[in-house]
Amino acid sequence: MGGDDAPRVPVAAALMAVRDHGVPVAVVGDPPALAAAGRTIRAPGDLGEVPGLQMVAASQVVGMHEDAALAVRAKPDASIRVAMRLLAEGRAAAVVSAGSTGATLAAALLGLGRVPGVRRPVLAVVLPVAGGVVLVDAGASPDIQPEALVAHARLGLAYAAARQVREPTFGLLNVGAEVGKGNELARAAHPLLAGLPGFAGNVEPAAVLGGAVDVVVTDGFTGNVFLKTMEAVAGRGGVIDASGAALLLGVDGVVLVAHGAAGEADLAGALRTARDTARADVVTALRAVLGPTIS
Amino acid sequence: MGGDDAPRVPVAAALMAVRDHGVPVAVVGDPPALAAAGRTIRAPGDLGEVPGLQMVAASQVVGMHEDAALAVRAKPDASIRVAMRLLAEGRAAAVVSAGSTGATLAAALLGLGRVPGVRRPVLAVVLPVAGGVVLVDAGASPDIQPEALVAHARLGLAYAAARQVREPTFGLLNVGAEVGKGNELARAAHPLLAGLPGFAGNVEPAAVLGGAVDVVVTDGFTGNVFLKTMEAVAGRGGVIDASGAALLLGVDGVVLVAHGAAGEADLAGALRTARDTARADVVTALRAVLGPTIS
Repeated sequence: MGGDDAPRVPVAAALMAVRDHGVPVAVVGDPPALAAAGRTIRAPGDLGEVPGLQMVAASQVVGMHEDAALAVRAKPDASIRVAMRLLAEGRAAAVVSAGSTGATLAAALLGLGRVPGVRRPVLAVVLPVAGGVVLVDAGASPDIQPEALVAHARLGLAYAAARQVREPTFGLLNVGAEVGKGNELARAAHPLLAGLPGFAGNVEPAAVLGGAVDVVVTDGFTGNVFLKTMEAVAGRGGVIDASGAALLLGVDGVVLVAHGAAGEADLAGALRTARDTARADVVTALRAVLGPTIS
Repeated sequence: MGGDDAPRVPVAAALMAVRDHGVPVAVVGDPPALAAAGRTIRAPGDLGEVPGLQMVAASQVVGMHEDAALAVRAKPDASIRVAMRLLAEGRAAAVVSAGSTGATLAAALLGLGRVPGVRRPVLAVVLPVAGGVVLVDAGASPDIQPEALVAHARLGLAYAAARQVREPTFGLLNVGAEVGKGNELARAAHPLLAGLPGFAGNVEPAAVLGGAVDVVVTDGFTGNVFLKTMEAVAGRGGVIDASGAALLLGVDGVVLVAHGAAGEADLAGALRTARDTARADVVTALRAVLGPTIS
């Protein structure tokens, strides 16, 4: 039920994922609205009869303009809550949401909890450059203290390791490579990050896109501006397709957050990524890597 | 004497600006180093004899790794200090530097002072999209208070007006269009900016590149990440040429800061932009617009 043109786009994306990518999908939402969406996109007959597609009823919705934490708690039958329950109960392997990031995070914390050792989950995006560079945080926490960047690095490195990167390196997104560059946050975080293995120092946007490191850490505001700028420029020339979904890294399950404006092909791609991420057992790998640390 | 490959690149750029763009240039620096650079780039005979090209001696240099404010004060014969004196004395119409931004700012404040009403100069870049969108601050001040964004908006709007934009609009660079989006700085600045004429609210990177506003304001860290990301992505596809120089907006003279890594064509382009900016009498226009306000 989340996203700018829901539930039409999510329903169309689910159909596409089932047909084109062979991903079985449960669509969670208001049954009449889902059925109406099915008619709009000219789905063949009853959506519930499409093999691989399942309809799961949820009577409530968390809107984009509600206080996410409050609304998620107040609406136990919200589509995002029901989806998290499917995941928690093992009836789904992953959740993809195009709704509010805050609501998705709140519902994931409530329904799944955190991987042990994680204080605050982050949004991780695999930038489609140089074989995949992990960006943390891509938008979950806009205002953080320097210590949080250490946690971002630990989560990002664990994710890279889960992605089979050996001895991953990481850098701090910055406006210059020299020590002492950047804003207060970056300057204060630099010496803390230097204590972690694999630290390659400050990295400028061009170095990130050039694959200088496996993981790049920053606050959620800068990370989101960086990501959206990449998308905006690439969208004009198609150089980089950065329109993928972000992984809610640190919650105890595979949860992907897609753009509210994601089209059906983007969202179908996110469903396929969710399937692949669940298959790769990224959460178990995270748990193994993070086990002895407190991030 | 500033830039990654100085003085070779600046000397080559000056020759190119004289020949290809018809911009008369005074090259300021250490005479033997300038002469050696001339030989390296196979300049025709003595550089001082090229029509339109002038050599001005300066015996000192501010290095990239020095404390800019201290070094600029301690070195009255630094090339950047001598260049500012040429401008202050009317022997040059503009200064272009590929050296440290901090040193250029310090030397400009010392040698030229501020336009009345300006507390702190900013770096303004005209993004080459939609006929030119003014970005303020592109990198001068990474850590600012919300009130400073009001000053950025005033300077940016004045610059747009000086560029002949009628009733310019401006937006706050942000990760979402809705009120309440962004980091602490953005959220606190939004209501302050709403008190200025022309405020179009939050603007995401794609809206900026689409020309939704004439001026976009942000802090110097976010602005620099935004600009460098544009350049990095565009550099891979040539979609946008954002490699131009930035105007030190608010100092009492036309001063442009180029990339340290600028090539000779970029730097020659910056010299032409400097000539054009001086011809357009942007500082006089700024003075007229800012006259009654305190930014």
